[in-house]
Amino acid sequence: MNTFGNKFKITISGSSHGKTVGVDIDGCPAGIAITENDFSADILKRKSGKVGTTQRIESDVPQISSGISDGKTTGNTISISFENKNIRSKDYDKFNDIPRPGHADLTGKIKYKGQSDQRGGGQSSGRMTLPIVAAGVIAKKIIPDVKFSTCLIEVGGSKDFDKAVEDAIKENDSVGGIIECRISNIPIGFGEPFFDSVESMLSHIMFSIPGIKGIEFGAGFEVAKMKGSECNDVFIDTKGTTATNNAGGINGGISNGNEIVFRVVVKPTSSIGKTQRTFNFKTKEMTDLVIEGRHDTCFALRTPIIVENAAAIVLADLFLRK
Amino acid sequence: MNTFGNKFKITISGSSHGKTVGVDIDGCPAGIAITENDFSADILKRKSGKVGTTQRIESDVPQISSGISDGKTTGNTISISFENKNIRSKDYDKFNDIPRPGHADLTGKIKYKGQSDQRGGGQSSGRMTLPIVAAGVIAKKIIPDVKFSTCLIEVGGSKDFDKAVEDAIKENDSVGGIIECRISNIPIGFGEPFFDSVESMLSHIMFSIPGIKGIEFGAGFEVAKMKGSECNDVFIDTKGTTATNNAGGINGGISNGNEIVFRVVVKPTSSIGKTQRTFNFKTKEMTDLVIEGRHDTCFALRTPIIVENAAAIVLADLFLRK
Amino acid sequence: MNTFGNKFKITISGSSHGKTVGVDIDGCPAGIAITENDFSADILKRKSGKVGTTQRIESDVPQISSGISDGKTTGNTISISFENKNIRSKDYDKFNDIPRPGHADLTGKIKYKGQSDQRGGGQSSGRMTLPIVAAGVIAKKIIPDVKFSTCLIEVGGSKDFDKAVEDAIKENDSVGGIIECRISNIPIGFGEPFFDSVESMLSHIMFSIPGIKGIEFGAGFEVAKMKGSECNDVFIDTKGTTATNNAGGINGGISNGNEIVFRVVVKPTSSIGKTQRTFNFKTKEMTDLVIEGRHDTCFALRTPIIVENAAAIVLADLFLRK
Amino acid sequence: MNTFGNKFKITISGSSHGKTVGVDIDGCPAGIAITENDFSADILKRKSGKVGTTQRIESDVPQISSGISDGKTTGNTISISFENKNIRSKDYDKFNDIPRPGHADLTGKIKYKGQSDQRGGGQSSGRMTLPIVAAGVIAKKIIPDVKFSTCLIEVGGSKDFDKAVEDAIKENDSVGGIIECRISNIPIGFGEPFFDSVESMLSHIMFSIPGIKGIEFGAGFEVAKMKGSECNDVFIDTKGTTATNNAGGINGGISNGNEIVFRVVVKPTSSIGKTQRTFNFKTKEMTDLVIEGRHDTCFALRTPIIVENAAAIVLADLFLRK
Repeated sequence: MNTFGNKFKITISGSSHGKTVGVDIDGCPAGIAITENDFSADILKRKSGKVGTTQRIESDVPQISSGISDGKTTGNTISISFENKNIRSKDYDKFNDIPRPGHADLTGKIKYKGQSDQRGGGQSSGRMTLPIVAAGVIAKKIIPDVKFSTCLIEVGGSKDFDKAVEDAIKENDSVGGIIECRISNIPIGFGEPFFDSVESMLSHIMFSIPGIKGIEFGAGFEVAKMKGSECNDVFIDTKGTTATNNAGGINGGISNGNEIVFRVVVKPTSSIGKTQRTFNFKTKEMTDLVIEGRHDTCFALRTPIIVENAAAIVLADLFLRK
Repeated sequence: MNTFGNKFKITISGSSHGKTVGVDIDGCPAGIAITENDFSADILKRKSGKVGTTQRIESDVPQISSGISDGKTTGNTISISFENKNIRSKDYDKFNDIPRPGHADLTGKIKYKGQSDQRGGGQSSGRMTLPIVAAGVIAKKIIPDVKFSTCLIEVGGSKDFDKAVEDAIKENDSVGGIIECRISNIPIGFGEPFFDSVESMLSHIMFSIPGIKGIEFGAGFEVAKMKGSECNDVFIDTKGTTATNNAGGINGGISNGNEIVFRVVVKPTSSIGKTQRTFNFKTKEMTDLVIEGRHDTCFALRTPIIVENAAAIVLADLFLRK
Repeated sequence: MNTFGNKFKITISGSSHGKTVGVDIDGCPAGIAITENDFSADILKRKSGKVGTTQRIESDVPQISSGISDGKTTGNTISISFENKNIRSKDYDKFNDIPRPGHADLTGKIKYKGQSDQRGGGQSSGRMTLPIVAAGVIAKKIIPDVKFSTCLIEVGGSKDFDKAVEDAIKENDSVGGIIECRISNIPIGFGEPFFDSVESMLSHIMFSIPGIKGIEFGAGFEVAKMKGSECNDVFIDTKGTTATNNAGGINGGISNGNEIVFRVVVKPTSSIGKTQRTFNFKTKEMTDLVIEGRHDTCFALRTPIIVENAAAIVLADLFLRK
Repeated sequence: MNTFGNKFKITISGSSHGKTVGVDIDGCPAGIAITENDFSADILKRKSGKVGTTQRIESDVPQISSGISDGKTTGNTISISFENKNIRSKDYDKFNDIPRPGHADLTGKIKYKGQSDQRGGGQSSGRMTLPIVAAGVIAKKIIPDVKFSTCLIEVGGSKDFDKAVEDAIKENDSVGGIIECRISNIPIGFGEPFFDSVESMLSHIMFSIPGIKGIEFGAGFEVAKMKGSECNDVFIDTKGTTATNNAGGINGGISNGNEIVFRVVVKPTSSIGKTQRTFNFKTKEMTDLVIEGRHDTCFALRTPIIVENAAAIVLADLFLRK
């Protein structure tokens, strides 16, 4: 389903090569000041155009048709949409017979019995993350004291991002990376036991972002090597500050007042210019596939703001549920 | 909230030191043959008693009071409960003032304003995973062709489990581990784009299991080091079989017919006998804490069946949504 | 599904002739004082035993196995169950072939492919309203200032209840009635536009009560005969008090601070001793049916507390959503 | 909240005097043929312009920006919006101080702390029923065999509609009415016990339609006067046909294969030109109020298609849940 959240409920719509992509937000409180300018900074961070990102450049101007009046939210559904202008659908025709490795061409075709619009990745496209970013801008307004810091900490296994990306470009290949999100100034008590823990809700939305294949909180997979006495974060003051933060700011699924820290891994972009040897479902033979459409060499460069705003959506929802 | 799922909806109840723990399952189809014996094997896998697990041994006999009649499900809510018998609540009194590092004592106390029953970890206790295992037994009956294989692949950073556990016991400390779950014979098409992807739903429930701090699918965090040409799983036949399985059987959030593979990391048990230097919220000074209650040196030894049955719950739900 | 509510979420389980009936409540705040005695008065109101009600008399003692500790709610799922003791299942065998008119025997059989437990009306039985009453007792504690007054205003088309019931008993027949519920001391602002209006939520739960066939708010069906100038409730003071209350205390789906008033109609009990000429699905011929099981001549006599507590469930949920 | 449904989930947006009104539909299966022409007939039925309806006439052309491609649904969210063009917001200024009797001016103002856009009735306006009609057009395509017949059976207490409306116009007053909806060719088994009965779901959405104050199924409130032997619908053949239909086609909350029949009552339009004596919250005195904006003398004339399509939304949802 295209709907997420409990009190701050978002429904995304559109597809990569449809007329628009958009989001409806149901449950935003009334009286929050928002203008279309508020979206600019975050949308710009997601935008392509830099080295290693796609040549499909969209203006990405938000159209708000409901829920904001005289510069404030009204308590009604907020509807935001973005036009798709820069589309080249002919690029996508052959993938019906030769589904692209790593993409949802095959699974989407079978699940939707050939009726889904898979052009540009259809509904599984990175384009669908634009509404997520927009909804996150609103979410941040609901929890204005919470601070987010999100950045790419590794690309293609390296800290030298430029080189990793340039190498991939030269080879007509792609690279992924690891993104770290740090959320501070968040009070004790966000999150619901048992099922709607902070980790459960954050991971749920993170894996909705195309290309995410793993998530870890605090020390993450490293805790498997620790003893309990090393892993436990002892308390040091009445505010509940901990000496270490191996738990990533979450105990028993609930925020403990320390920084929430998590990392996600983004796979290399599936679309690559380099020749791939894969299966042609029409001829029933292996074939060479060269993907010529425009695509990001490293989508991970554009992903931090998506991760951050997706996290904001979850935290605003948990805040409104408290 | 204590409710999870869409079509196969479970609500868990009880707490570690209350009268019972239990689960209500709403949405199980009528006509599925189930007897109380069907629970034995999975419940036994979760049971303590082995070296490295707690001395709190419960009989764990399921009481089914609704939803099964004459050995078959009736379409009505299935209610299963388990008595808590072997309780020593006096062990837990002092943690009000000195919240245990790594536990939810502090967050639970603040969130529930001192009203929650935190004895034995209360609602965040590992005891709450017993209803999950029971619900998973039912879930597996809904998708009988799907095969699960789940095992601990690393304990305390080592493949030599016995030694890692023995070392921790000697030091009055604890260890965690990494669990891998492989799910085969699953058709193409499980999972919903955008938000209810297979990864989103699986991670959501996995992070409900106490002590899980990370999850990765297929090649997981390793994909950050790969090129797209290495990471992409090319198709090799009409069934959609892929030459590699870096995607862990999931493309665009939907099962692609290959084995679903994921790993979770379990932190070392937070309760340790070893002295910890932490904060006393009553005296407002640092203090020594020795936790004397019964606990698992390595809860990860008992976690694989919990992970497996939690995965079964998600897949049964996604199956019924198709 | 057997689950209702958003923040105050209830799941009912059991069936008329199973071991128990019960309810799980997910979302009740921590710290509310509740004892098993609190249930007595409302459960007694629902109880049979009076003239015109069934001879199946159950002790109806609530067993609380989760969510209440030391006399207060813990924030955890509240589990309440009631044993079914006084069962005579042999009474129900023949209704497989000759489904009882007015009952769910036929629809249940087809929907659940013969697997549901239809004895005693199974899941559609009036017995399932006992958990509703119990959940309502908890709900009322969440909104202690709200006052409920609920009574039967008409039985069998008459204000003389005793005579109407006695006549029906003499004829081995049954009668229904109209129940009015008045809810006062409720502040402005309960209810959510658009879909979760007070009327929508109340009617949703009311039609879950077996035998309810209509609901009207305020002047109800009478408004069809009024002019707008008669129907509109003009305001008379700063509190929003209205001169009349044709709207039943609800404007635009939201409580307006005046008394909430609604009426529901309860059909005559479907099970009657009087001979009915109906279809035998085995012999494929019309046949005479005499229903000998124990049943209420006028279930409406026991329904007011069910209606009232169902209303309390909705209002507690809407309160927690505010 | 502005979201309704389980498998066929709709979110409505916009307000009477905002830029647009619209609906997002999440969960519509892929492959259903739909063109913008399919909406014309139902939208026309809702349109104003006839005697007794408002002079605010909108073109009501649906804009579909997502979810339909090449004339077929894609399985993605369907987004439909309608521009608001014919707006005269100055008409609504004074209602801040003098809330209109029967309207949501006061409750909306208090609930949303003065931030909601109440012009034209805001979110509680009859204009919000246009997206409902549009969503119903799609819903009907999902259950193409089901036949709907919906009509106004009484206006202002009379069968002579023209006269009742003309009288009201002359008096600057308004009238309401009763609408009957008959749904045939619907198989046994729609509806879920316990809470999501056909009656529960239908009544839930009906009371979302502004101005509905009562609903009854089959014989409705008349059953209060019947004996069980009169009220019970005896079966007469193997298909489950009943001799009478007092139950309105629903037994135990589940469709029984006979015609589903229900009636709703629509109150007289609250906005009337006739002088009303009501409270001025600014001056704190009673005052005369004359409402000069454009409004329907009898909104009930336009309501049948809204009722019908709202019913279709419920039935499509229940169908997809089966």
